Amino acid sequence: MRDEALILRANEGFYLAFERRDLAAMDGVWAASAPVACIHPGWGPIVGRDAVMRSWHDILANPASPEVTCTSPQAHLLGDVGYVICLEHVTLPDEGQRGVFVATNTFVREEGEWRMALHQSSPVADELVDASTRPSQMN
Amino acid sequence: MRDEALILRANEGFYLAFERRDLAAMDGVWAASAPVACIHPGWGPIVGRDAVMRSWHDILANPASPEVTCTSPQAHLLGDVGYVICLEHVTLPDEGQRGVFVATNTFVREEGEWRMALHQSSPVADELVDASTRPSQMN
Repeated sequence: MRDEALILRANEGFYLAFERRDLAAMDGVWAASAPVACIHPGWGPIVGRDAVMRSWHDILANPASPEVTCTSPQAHLLGDVGYVICLEHVTLPDEGQRGVFVATNTFVREEGEWRMALHQSSPVADELVDASTRPSQMN
Repeated sequence: MRDEALILRANEGFYLAFERRDLAAMDGVWAASAPVACIHPGWGPIVGRDAVMRSWHDILANPASPEVTCTSPQAHLLGDVGYVICLEHVTLPDEGQRGVFVATNTFVREEGEWRMALHQSSPVADELVDASTRPSQMN
């Protein structure tokens, strides 16, 4: 399997762990020794594995956390690092509010596996959502 | 000079090109052959060098574009890729509006130079700005 496909599979693993509120799976998604960081929408930067995993513990344990569906993932390779850009369709369960976010998920090859080093998700302005979700903008 | 210091210098070059509205310098900041992408605040993803540089042309040529100051940059190394997480203090010249954004700038080693492959900037929620700019949160 080509690296891009493996990276996309690792990216799927991230969203599956999120969907299933599976902290152990989420822990396995993230790199063990590479420096990791995470920027949740609206949050400041979270740097370091312990702090990143604490944030996921809190998010996955919170029933008010959003449901997130990933679409249009594209993988790009920078040697032993790869990044996926994708759209996140987010629904808040309590309020039914929806939004579109754009995420970059950066993976690093670690012990032969692609593991997440960096996740950043940021909101797409409402007036740009239609344009940004057109496939032509992804090329 | 250690790679982290070289990456931070490349990161400074990016913000200097932005500050000076210098499109040629901005062009030199970005990788020439590696796959590049850019996510401006509120925008959808822009993928590919031509599209990314067009977006910078439009931003740097626009007198209403914000002034951006970078603080608290931290560089992290993933082999021949490095990423900087920093805060962006943004002022819109016309309206005087201010905001704090968190940016990830990913660089790749290309022909012996660290060049930008990925830039993503996203807003920090107003109520978190004080907390997110505390140095303790950057560790």
